[in-house]
Amino acid sequence: MIIKSEEKIKPTIPEAPGIKDVTKKILIGTEDGSHNIVMRRFVVNPGGNTPRHTHDFEHIVNIEKGEGIAVDDQGNRHKISAGQSLYIKPNEKHQFTNPYSAPFQFLCIIPNIQKKG
Amino acid sequence: MIIKSEEKIKPTIPEAPGIKDVTKKILIGTEDGSHNIVMRRFVVNPGGNTPRHTHDFEHIVNIEKGEGIAVDDQGNRHKISAGQSLYIKPNEKHQFTNPYSAPFQFLCIIPNIQKKG
Repeated sequence: MIIKSEEKIKPTIPEAPGIKDVTKKILIGTEDGSHNIVMRRFVVNPGGNTPRHTHDFEHIVNIEKGEGIAVDDQGNRHKISAGQSLYIKPNEKHQFTNPYSAPFQFLCIIPNIQKKG
Repeated sequence: MIIKSEEKIKPTIPEAPGIKDVTKKILIGTEDGSHNIVMRRFVVNPGGNTPRHTHDFEHIVNIEKGEGIAVDDQGNRHKISAGQSLYIKPNEKHQFTNPYSAPFQFLCIIPNIQKKG
């Protein structure tokens, strides 16, 4: 059993075309021995956004704090907030933006794609 | 993209030998089209506990609210609280108990074991 405290996990600033004001922490992943699932926490700061992109793995999302916008594959914008959960299919275009004044924080859980490499 | 609000998801009372005062919500699972990962939210009420058991799939846990005790495979008791994350290996014995006065709430994410059936 591995027990980790968030404050001991260093945030990283993910790089991707179009990404803005986002930080990431891998809460549980390959380094903890998790072969199938990776749990990451993202914070999109006010004015920031994740890339509008697709990939061949799904996202399971739980909104923890704040409010944001989920942009779906049709370009429709959905306001989302703490207490909501999302499922984004493999290859479905998506983006998260934060046009609000407080940080927007969510867990994003994915299959461990490092296994594929 | 599927967006679900927690308050619309009915809690269930899981049944298992030794379980006490626990409720469960499947936030994202098979019914949402998620083939690889299931995200569940558990609340262990004061005085309650999950079963002390093992199974052949891992747990990825994020503590959301309150405090509880994680009992590891050696029987050691670890106090855990909001902000901590856990990885429990396949076949590792474990249990969560809540000897405190407030509800103990956590996400528990697992591979989709329905695929194995």
